[in-house]
Amino acid sequence: MTPRRTAPYRAGVTDEGQRVQAPPPPLAFLVRGPDRPGLLHALTGVISAHHGNITSVEILERGEHSTIFFEIDPVADGDALIADLERLEPVVSVERTLSMHHVYGKRIIVIGGGAQVGQVAVGAISEADRHNIRGEKISVDTIPLVGEENIAAAVRAVPRLQRAVALVLAGALMGGEITRAVEEIRRQGIMVVSLNMAGSVPKAADLVVSDPIQAGVMTVMAVARTAKFDIARQRGRVY
Amino acid sequence: MTPRRTAPYRAGVTDEGQRVQAPPPPLAFLVRGPDRPGLLHALTGVISAHHGNITSVEILERGEHSTIFFEIDPVADGDALIADLERLEPVVSVERTLSMHHVYGKRIIVIGGGAQVGQVAVGAISEADRHNIRGEKISVDTIPLVGEENIAAAVRAVPRLQRAVALVLAGALMGGEITRAVEEIRRQGIMVVSLNMAGSVPKAADLVVSDPIQAGVMTVMAVARTAKFDIARQRGRVY
Repeated sequence: MTPRRTAPYRAGVTDEGQRVQAPPPPLAFLVRGPDRPGLLHALTGVISAHHGNITSVEILERGEHSTIFFEIDPVADGDALIADLERLEPVVSVERTLSMHHVYGKRIIVIGGGAQVGQVAVGAISEADRHNIRGEKISVDTIPLVGEENIAAAVRAVPRLQRAVALVLAGALMGGEITRAVEEIRRQGIMVVSLNMAGSVPKAADLVVSDPIQAGVMTVMAVARTAKFDIARQRGRVY
Repeated sequence: MTPRRTAPYRAGVTDEGQRVQAPPPPLAFLVRGPDRPGLLHALTGVISAHHGNITSVEILERGEHSTIFFEIDPVADGDALIADLERLEPVVSVERTLSMHHVYGKRIIVIGGGAQVGQVAVGAISEADRHNIRGEKISVDTIPLVGEENIAAAVRAVPRLQRAVALVLAGALMGGEITRAVEEIRRQGIMVVSLNMAGSVPKAADLVVSDPIQAGVMTVMAVARTAKFDIARQRGRVY
């Protein structure tokens, strides 16, 4: 199991503002074979015997042609692990593949009203493009939502989103339960940027930015290893 | 395990164009307790004994305060399953939570060049907002990428993204390996919309739309239960 919330690549910097090395890439593979009760239990048994820490599991297909995707931390002998998995009775094949982190990289999540979320996305996507061309992998994910309860639930779920490192809250009024959710996920290592809006959310955020395009650009800069922007020096500022 | 690639909610319609019912919501819970080797193996053993089909597992935190998130298909007695998990030696608590599908819903993925991806996102986010206000849950995820190999790998990974139902390819020239990847994921149940661009990708897509904002809007309409747009009637068209 990976120290997901404290993994260095989450923001590219430690709390002290030091740039850190990316961890070694995980071992990713697809297991194919007919779906049997307890198959996942059997597969995790083999992985556990190889001291493999599972960081992600996804069931892609079920039935006679089921496919399960695994990502695990690097193990001493990956080839032996894969050979042992192939020896399990229902397994047809095990194929190494690219890790989701390798393909999609870090994720920035934008939540709020459609008008503002769209403009934050334009800024973030355009800036991510510039860094991805230089070897980064940053993707920008959005959800337009209305209502304190819905938004607070979505904010609280951000740390459960794979590879999520930062959240931008893009609206005109946010507070109450959303502010408590922001405080919780910041303690869990998620960086939070807020538009300059009514309500208590801006006070709880790492950074407040008035222009939505600028908010998207700055968030990408804060998480990119290829940028010089240091969130530790910007914390609490309003732009 | 869920029939993810054939689940009715993936596009809201069957191949015959009939609207289908959403499946019952999954059982989602967080397991807390100190991280021990083989913990995931022990947890999946209990779930397997209750005939629980695991649709998603996510390790959120490791160490003395580790947290693992599970989503499983509904079981006969969810309370008994949770009680049995709580009885496992290292487990401190098991807490029911909202499913990721409940919070984030269906995902539309936009891949391509920053300029076009940003505009598709504006259209899709604005349209998703209108449907989400009426009870849908649609989120829009983007990745600005360059190069045939990178884009083909990202396209092939879309079916491995949780809750992904549709892909928009937003660029000026795409073909070759990307076209083969599009054909593969369409067979796996992902709807593919392409901008009107050079290369062979538009011919392989379900739908071709020239204006990027319109492409975003139409893709949301095609996956929304709250819209009257029927992709089965639009397949192969160019707008």
